[in-house]
Amino acid sequence: MPRTSTAVPPPAVIANGNANEPTASAPTARRRRVQSAETGMGILKALARLGGAASLTALAQAVDESTAKVHRYLASMVEEGLVTQDAASQRYVLGPEAIHIGQAALRQCDPIRAGEPALLQLQAELGATCFIAVMGNLGPTILRIEEPPLAVVVNVRAGSVLPLLWSATGQVFMALGAGAALRVQAQQEWARATPRQKAVLPDAAAIDALCLQVRTQGFANVQDLLLPGISAAAAPLRRHDGAVVGALTALGATGGFDARPGGDAVGRLCAAAASVSAQLGFLNASPQR
Amino acid sequence: MPRTSTAVPPPAVIANGNANEPTASAPTARRRRVQSAETGMGILKALARLGGAASLTALAQAVDESTAKVHRYLASMVEEGLVTQDAASQRYVLGPEAIHIGQAALRQCDPIRAGEPALLQLQAELGATCFIAVMGNLGPTILRIEEPPLAVVVNVRAGSVLPLLWSATGQVFMALGAGAALRVQAQQEWARATPRQKAVLPDAAAIDALCLQVRTQGFANVQDLLLPGISAAAAPLRRHDGAVVGALTALGATGGFDARPGGDAVGRLCAAAASVSAQLGFLNASPQR
Repeated sequence: MPRTSTAVPPPAVIANGNANEPTASAPTARRRRVQSAETGMGILKALARLGGAASLTALAQAVDESTAKVHRYLASMVEEGLVTQDAASQRYVLGPEAIHIGQAALRQCDPIRAGEPALLQLQAELGATCFIAVMGNLGPTILRIEEPPLAVVVNVRAGSVLPLLWSATGQVFMALGAGAALRVQAQQEWARATPRQKAVLPDAAAIDALCLQVRTQGFANVQDLLLPGISAAAAPLRRHDGAVVGALTALGATGGFDARPGGDAVGRLCAAAASVSAQLGFLNASPQR
Repeated sequence: MPRTSTAVPPPAVIANGNANEPTASAPTARRRRVQSAETGMGILKALARLGGAASLTALAQAVDESTAKVHRYLASMVEEGLVTQDAASQRYVLGPEAIHIGQAALRQCDPIRAGEPALLQLQAELGATCFIAVMGNLGPTILRIEEPPLAVVVNVRAGSVLPLLWSATGQVFMALGAGAALRVQAQQEWARATPRQKAVLPDAAAIDALCLQVRTQGFANVQDLLLPGISAAAAPLRRHDGAVVGALTALGATGGFDARPGGDAVGRLCAAAASVSAQLGFLNASPQR
């Protein structure tokens, strides 16, 4: 039977292979990929975007291919257990293997690994100290830090636990994280605060207003609050369900480092954090500048 | 560059297409699929089985293909956002698109749709009344029921709410479901019970023993307990994380329908429930006979 170009485009390796295959670590100037595998993955992604269930017609429209072509790919996905066809409605539905793949992907979801490339790039862009922190059992904890060659000497290093109230990192977790436990910890911090800190956040209403501000602008910024002469800004790292699983923070000497809203540093920080959140599966991540 | 058969097997449509493509609903005697899409899906599934992250070598071993071939498919998956490569370890890791696909699959996870084919088959095999129930706001509620042509007249139909203590269906939810609320409801049922029912479950210790028994054998069975002359057996429908999202139940006239452990009906019921659980993404589902 002759192939027709519309119905059966020949699946092809995008670049020919040869006997000396590259290893995964070797830089490959020319990408070698598999066209029909990509088409299949594209149909799978389209089915997910359509909510996980769709008719053949809707799916073919979504990927801009013929129903005949999409039908063949769907037959392969059914064969592999990634898709099932609903007997009553004839719609194609993501199946149990798709659940297993998603669960395995969630287990690998790690703000440090997902954030490392963005952290390095942000540090290079800003020339400032940048780090990723997660919520540890004692509070926001720095796990991964990148510093400029001539770093401002500040008391932040991998392993440092930061306060919720007086650090930009902590404010991100306090304002955007979940849990009454955070509020109790913030109250304890307030009881131990310096007069200067209490002047910035004099009462519970001021803390509520701060949280609302952080939620509204999507990042936190402090100046000379935790450490005199140091300004910092922090933005949330969110996973697929929106939960804050980490914070990306940049800091520098007040005056040299501009942590104010609308500044270049905050814009780049928020864009970097949004790209990490997208890697972690967060769908609504959009850079806030 | 010449293709070599080991390094670059030509991706091929498994059956040739022609101008008259089948619709999704038309019975296709001959499956038309896409070989290289299936290979790609197979690699994706293998990566999930390896925990969501693996080296090229480990992945190639898992699917019994050359590293060169698997590398090309991985390049396509990276291109489509389903896989990322960890810069530090060079390992391939399931990426954000895999999370989205899994989340969409979970949204489509429905014990009624997933269970319908098994329900129909079980009814045909046993010739008994079979149904799927879920936990509604008033208790275990029958959503989908299949009856033999000459059904035993019993007070069960779609929409019926069943007791936790006196129905096999309810016992599955009570013993295997979560929550103190179920226990409160069971106590209320006990307060209203008939003397005959109280003789079967005289006190809290007896209820605990019943729950332990249901958990141990993986199903519940009652005889003449809710309805005189009626025996029933029920098995849990579990989703990916093991949570019980429904029950599959078979019932018939005591004497005609054998709901006892070790009997043929219970074996078929449990096998059917396990297959539905597998469809819902439950990995440890194995038929208990």
